[in-house]
Amino acid sequence: MLLSGGLDSTTSAAIARSQGFTLYTLTFDYGQRHRIEIERAAAVARHLEVAQHVVMPVDLRRFGGSALTSDIDVPKARSLTDIGHGIPVTYVPARNTIFLSFALAWAEVLEARDLFIGVNVLDASGYPDCRAEYIAAYERMANLATKAGAEGKRLKIHTPLIAMTKADIIRAGRALGVDYALTTSCYDPAPDGTACGACDACLLRLKGFRESGTRDPIAYRSPASAAT
Amino acid sequence: MLLSGGLDSTTSAAIARSQGFTLYTLTFDYGQRHRIEIERAAAVARHLEVAQHVVMPVDLRRFGGSALTSDIDVPKARSLTDIGHGIPVTYVPARNTIFLSFALAWAEVLEARDLFIGVNVLDASGYPDCRAEYIAAYERMANLATKAGAEGKRLKIHTPLIAMTKADIIRAGRALGVDYALTTSCYDPAPDGTACGACDACLLRLKGFRESGTRDPIAYRSPASAAT
Repeated sequence: MLLSGGLDSTTSAAIARSQGFTLYTLTFDYGQRHRIEIERAAAVARHLEVAQHVVMPVDLRRFGGSALTSDIDVPKARSLTDIGHGIPVTYVPARNTIFLSFALAWAEVLEARDLFIGVNVLDASGYPDCRAEYIAAYERMANLATKAGAEGKRLKIHTPLIAMTKADIIRAGRALGVDYALTTSCYDPAPDGTACGACDACLLRLKGFRESGTRDPIAYRSPASAAT
Repeated sequence: MLLSGGLDSTTSAAIARSQGFTLYTLTFDYGQRHRIEIERAAAVARHLEVAQHVVMPVDLRRFGGSALTSDIDVPKARSLTDIGHGIPVTYVPARNTIFLSFALAWAEVLEARDLFIGVNVLDASGYPDCRAEYIAAYERMANLATKAGAEGKRLKIHTPLIAMTKADIIRAGRALGVDYALTTSCYDPAPDGTACGACDACLLRLKGFRESGTRDPIAYRSPASAAT
């Protein structure tokens, strides 16, 4: 399963574990600004007692083209109503396609037939590679691409969060004992990992906690954000 | 376009050039035994006067599972009749899926809508990710994955060699002025790049040259192979 150390992939992994799956988690070092992700993903992997955790280097900076990997500034929305018009500059070209492809390669080696990815409808508003129809097309392609697929063993891409709101996700994770203090969502954290409280990812996360009726245990740079 | 420095991808690139495309070529350093590929691909890129050539490191060895990237021996067929029963151990898990995903990312950055890959029916006998139905499924997925696709600009994966034999491919390349002395096909070359003349890739290449009625300009370790 793909594990970024964020709220969604962490909850997705906890759900997979609750369903009896043995977890193999994959995190990418793709030159992201928010490198704290990599540390948090390792902490989450330990927390969830995974069988194996791999950090795969992927040099997407060679192609450029995204605020998450190049020198374009991460936009700061002033409110949630600013979010979701078109595809944001934080979109990384073909990111989920590349990430799922590595997961597929590892699954083949492990002879695993179940892949998990924490995409959900909220993200889908801006990122084409988070939509259910994209995941279905990927699964179909994967079953034609692989040795297992060619031998008739069907591979499934699980998206347990696809129809959940952030508040739903947080409630589900809490029920499964997820420690959200280990997670990070911010696109533009301080060097020590403190979240900015103003990027799209922070605003969506804070809204989710607010709506779930629970407190976000992580620290924010902006006191205003933490108080909302 | 994907360019391995082999006979197929080189011919595919020459065909794209003859169709008026500006070429951007992508080679992977994926821990392959046959690392001479990387040098040959760069030489082919210069020969074809590409606009940009990128070598992307991809560490598939972290997952293991193929004779091309791990310590499993490359099998030596004694004749062509030994080839093509099931999926060979030289199959690299999800390789074309990973490679096409990087090409897709670069295409998005370049705003290119045409991807080229040199797959063909001969390879398809053993590798699931060389079949036409796989490529069609990949193209469908790619059009759902990407910003351009989401905006209605269709992306196409070109497979000019898909229905060609090796002899057909060599004839087409010769007609376009391809210098096959620059290419390499061997899965298990000597340190200086000399082809073994005995692996599946060498046998298929030699058969192709024989059937095309032309001489293969590269050197082989086994005099028997060169003479056939």
